[in-house]
Amino acid sequence: MFKEVTINTKNNEEIVDITEKVERLVKESNLNEGICTIFVKHTTASIIINENWDPSVGKDLLELLEEIAPKHKAYSHNDGNAHSHLKSAILGTSVTIPILNNELQLGRWQDIFLIEFDGPKERKIIVQIK
Amino acid sequence: MFKEVTINTKNNEEIVDITEKVERLVKESNLNEGICTIFVKHTTASIIINENWDPSVGKDLLELLEEIAPKHKAYSHNDGNAHSHLKSAILGTSVTIPILNNELQLGRWQDIFLIEFDGPKERKIIVQIK
Amino acid sequence: MFKEVTINTKNNEEIVDITEKVERLVKESNLNEGICTIFVKHTTASIIINENWDPSVGKDLLELLEEIAPKHKAYSHNDGNAHSHLKSAILGTSVTIPILNNELQLGRWQDIFLIEFDGPKERKIIVQIK
Repeated sequence: MFKEVTINTKNNEEIVDITEKVERLVKESNLNEGICTIFVKHTTASIIINENWDPSVGKDLLELLEEIAPKHKAYSHNDGNAHSHLKSAILGTSVTIPILNNELQLGRWQDIFLIEFDGPKERKIIVQIK
Repeated sequence: MFKEVTINTKNNEEIVDITEKVERLVKESNLNEGICTIFVKHTTASIIINENWDPSVGKDLLELLEEIAPKHKAYSHNDGNAHSHLKSAILGTSVTIPILNNELQLGRWQDIFLIEFDGPKERKIIVQIK
Repeated sequence: MFKEVTINTKNNEEIVDITEKVERLVKESNLNEGICTIFVKHTTASIIINENWDPSVGKDLLELLEEIAPKHKAYSHNDGNAHSHLKSAILGTSVTIPILNNELQLGRWQDIFLIEFDGPKERKIIVQIK
């Protein structure tokens, strides 16, 4: 199964939990065992897996990345979003999750997040189940 | 093949070479060509590939991550392990390695490591060979 | 399809766009839907996806990584390339890209890059299409 999912982010930087959307597609696929690849088609956003319970973990992550690659700094790429590309490069653009018994094999505390670094924007994510 | 492997880490931060365990499962699978996904089911640990020969590379990595996201710092997530989540987010929770001739196609100096950022703990790793 | 591609880098640090090479292999594979894994067999290089249009994004990335893990610093690993291992660990050694209609499903601005952190060297990359 190959599906493109659209997420409209609302803020300049934002963390969006997409776990339920992905889990629904896994159910629909009826695949018993396989691999789920979640891939964002942009260079100023990321897909990661992290803790689902306390949203402050995401806040800490955005703050840390802003320390590492601050928005207001002189970069060679002068479109105003160099920091967004850098943050995306550090966290990456996809995750791969095993499927067993037609379920994502996430740990108890793991959820899947889209991270927006240059929003608000319409973002396209591919969910591939194979 | 889908296998869950348990690793009991012994220290608060630790690097555990899991290459042999994964290679054994690849042999057992009898799969000639495919993909091996290694996925850790936790948000305060990571799976990476790095140099296998000199353990001091791992020491340097833990020290660098401690500089980037120090344990003793004020974070919004106040369970005492915010730094562990941040380190895990930067390095990621899975690696994907091609298989050919029933062998992991790692380079000469590459091994697979579980990195513990909030131990000691019992850690569950999925090895999927497809 | 499983192919090993050789890239000879020319500088100590360098970003090489390998998208065309990978796209050619996808065409040759004739695979309609699948997963493309690009894996570098070295621990002082990385594979990432990032913006293809402005090369200064890559320059910013190399400069940021040099700030994070400077070449001239005391590391435990004293082969002179500890910083190269650290940069490789942060960015990772592989990317996974969905294939549909016998085409890589990259976004409009996304290209695939080999990043050299300890060159010039002969680098081996695996492109697996499944």
